[in-house]
Amino acid sequence: MSELSYNPVELIRRKRDGQVLSTEEISRFVADYSRGAIPDYQAAALLMAIFFRGLSEVELLALTEAMLHSGEVLDLSDVPGAKIDKHSTGGVGDKVSLHLAPTVAACGLRVPMISGRGLGHSGGTLDKLESIPGFSTSLSTEEFRTVLRRTGMSLIGQTDTLVPADKLLYALRDVTATVESIPLISASIMSKKLAEGIDGLVLDVKVGSGAFMKTREEAYQLAATLVTIGRRAGKQVTAFLTDMDQPLGRYIGNAAEVNESLAVLRGEGPPDLVELNRVLGAEMLRLGGLASSEAEALSRIDQAVASGEALARLQRCAALQGALVDLRDSNEPWLFDNLHTGAQVVSAPITGYVQEIDAEAVGWAGVALRAGRERKEDDIDPAAYIYLDKKRGEAVSGGAPLCHFAGSPELPPERIARTREILQKAYVIGPAPPTPRPLILDVLR
Amino acid sequence: MSELSYNPVELIRRKRDGQVLSTEEISRFVADYSRGAIPDYQAAALLMAIFFRGLSEVELLALTEAMLHSGEVLDLSDVPGAKIDKHSTGGVGDKVSLHLAPTVAACGLRVPMISGRGLGHSGGTLDKLESIPGFSTSLSTEEFRTVLRRTGMSLIGQTDTLVPADKLLYALRDVTATVESIPLISASIMSKKLAEGIDGLVLDVKVGSGAFMKTREEAYQLAATLVTIGRRAGKQVTAFLTDMDQPLGRYIGNAAEVNESLAVLRGEGPPDLVELNRVLGAEMLRLGGLASSEAEALSRIDQAVASGEALARLQRCAALQGALVDLRDSNEPWLFDNLHTGAQVVSAPITGYVQEIDAEAVGWAGVALRAGRERKEDDIDPAAYIYLDKKRGEAVSGGAPLCHFAGSPELPPERIARTREILQKAYVIGPAPPTPRPLILDVLR
Repeated sequence: MSELSYNPVELIRRKRDGQVLSTEEISRFVADYSRGAIPDYQAAALLMAIFFRGLSEVELLALTEAMLHSGEVLDLSDVPGAKIDKHSTGGVGDKVSLHLAPTVAACGLRVPMISGRGLGHSGGTLDKLESIPGFSTSLSTEEFRTVLRRTGMSLIGQTDTLVPADKLLYALRDVTATVESIPLISASIMSKKLAEGIDGLVLDVKVGSGAFMKTREEAYQLAATLVTIGRRAGKQVTAFLTDMDQPLGRYIGNAAEVNESLAVLRGEGPPDLVELNRVLGAEMLRLGGLASSEAEALSRIDQAVASGEALARLQRCAALQGALVDLRDSNEPWLFDNLHTGAQVVSAPITGYVQEIDAEAVGWAGVALRAGRERKEDDIDPAAYIYLDKKRGEAVSGGAPLCHFAGSPELPPERIARTREILQKAYVIGPAPPTPRPLILDVLR
Repeated sequence: MSELSYNPVELIRRKRDGQVLSTEEISRFVADYSRGAIPDYQAAALLMAIFFRGLSEVELLALTEAMLHSGEVLDLSDVPGAKIDKHSTGGVGDKVSLHLAPTVAACGLRVPMISGRGLGHSGGTLDKLESIPGFSTSLSTEEFRTVLRRTGMSLIGQTDTLVPADKLLYALRDVTATVESIPLISASIMSKKLAEGIDGLVLDVKVGSGAFMKTREEAYQLAATLVTIGRRAGKQVTAFLTDMDQPLGRYIGNAAEVNESLAVLRGEGPPDLVELNRVLGAEMLRLGGLASSEAEALSRIDQAVASGEALARLQRCAALQGALVDLRDSNEPWLFDNLHTGAQVVSAPITGYVQEIDAEAVGWAGVALRAGRERKEDDIDPAAYIYLDKKRGEAVSGGAPLCHFAGSPELPPERIARTREILQKAYVIGPAPPTPRPLILDVLR
């Protein structure tokens, strides 16, 4: 500690008392923490002080930059074309990356997408991808670059060289109850996205029970913060606020969600996933300069799907990343064999219309089934799934299926019972159809 | 961590979100932290959350009790007489314990006093005692008990067996900027005082620039919190709010403050120290049932000093604790030789009246002289001192001494210069006498 030229306690105290830290102070703290010169307990105290006091815009940019420069920043300038990524703040049934990346790659964008794993009720793109036999998400940055150059996309997990400060800080936040802080979330997200070497970014900030942000106000604040950081870093950024009060699509579960994404790429996807594919995709094309109007952008998206080029892109990327199955072949046995059989049905207690499906509860039902994980170190079962026979606004007869689910035959019976109980409670049935709710709630351009 | 039957993160999160923790949750957290089953970073996050959210009365009692029962609680029921202690929240020139303990012991109370060291601008009783040649403040609890039984008093430092949780938590608070929290301060003070096995406690909560609490409101809140905890624990407690806007007495520095305390015991002390000795002492006698009226109590105090019995008590205690000098003998060479010579004078820039003497600044001047310590591990110089020739309200001619000070001949000249500069700035001189200010500001009985 004595090697430091400043007193970390003073820095914590000043943040605690609502004062603004300088860019240099934040940079030094992050760098010193990353190299182990500041102990976890001081970082934990600072994080909790930031939780309560927030960060000014200048502090936030300083934190993001300090985290970004704690490791390698990819330079993709040798990859031709506009590099545009999408980031979702996460939710239940959110498999959009799986179909969106190949759709816009088929339109000519380059999508260098680095994703995360699921935790708690919220799913993760990496877990979904890894349900594809052979698919590897652990590529070196050189391999990532090669796949990107050859297919227009690559889908990987965090590497050791990118944003190491985020790994350390995130792990500490996770065990010190300092995750739920808009500035800390924003710096974490944006440092990782800026490290990808992108030109632009479309953010999908989820709102509702299945999202991290439960209210539109919080989500808006997060979206605005993310957009500010991205623009200050010289990137083109658009943020959408989209509904996560009920799960996206009808499937929850890793292999099942890959299947549903493939359905989108075959033109057979459910309307919410198709809408997000079109709207987010069109915005990515706009940011990448590949369309001059929204109509043109939407038309290119639709054509990429209709022509089969989007699906072909995903297959090309998957093959290069080790996939042992052909995702284009809807007779591929994997597509049928990758889900547990012996599904259990959850029935409607009364006749009526589905008013709500608590997305967070459905996510936790997935965790009970081991489709998701309680703790970071838990294994997941890629073949476990939940299928929502009924979604919000749909009519159901008393005793008819609301949803069904299947887990491993080895799953303890109490987990099956818990899944059923959670799902039963997640559905609210009422006598009249609920007021329709838009999927896209707002956009910050 | 997996051995815990609960998730500490959930507990931190609930406190962070303003929820109330149960007594059992707090007990378990303190016990698990004390035995090393909860890491420092989680305790740091909880402390910072408590800093922002505070503690309910029930939580505060739970924390105090949990800390108290982390170690030995002295049982002094075999020591006859009322066991009454005094605790000051600390300040500059506050040597009251040194004369108050023998004064009330001479009146028949038992004073089991466990004190702390100085840190920053604030002095500590242990450092003062240790300037007496041979005086040991590191007694076992058995030795402490023996000295207490034989002399009616004993003055020692924290032992390893009493309130170990406070040692751990205080050390952590010190490096995580979570010291300045009324509930945390209160639990720390009261757990240590309750561990002494006392029947009653008089609290001297200092208010002003030299105190921890800068405003009367904060000080009142702390006093009320301390009184609540003490009464809930079944003790008789009175809290005084007393002025610490200027230093107490005229001397700052360890050996010098012992000398000034001896002057109080010889009936030659400065009026502020004499007043605190009488008022706090009278309250201690009242709590201990040794006086039925304040007048009677004050008269007993005055007699204990006038008769020389108070001074004799201090000498008896000091001798048992190893002192090699006779504190009763005002010809004792130590009393003359224990201060550095070659004092430097700080002169009044203009003629007028002393309006203020910034007590905190004087404390830091003492630190510059090495009479106090910047860091816990620093050594101090017992012979360094500051003498205030002029105190608030006194007239001074331009160029005449305001104060003087002396440090070790080995002290770097820049420290001498810094001391002078701080002291010069600490004095405010104005044309008219300031409105007199009472020493005793409030009392919570």
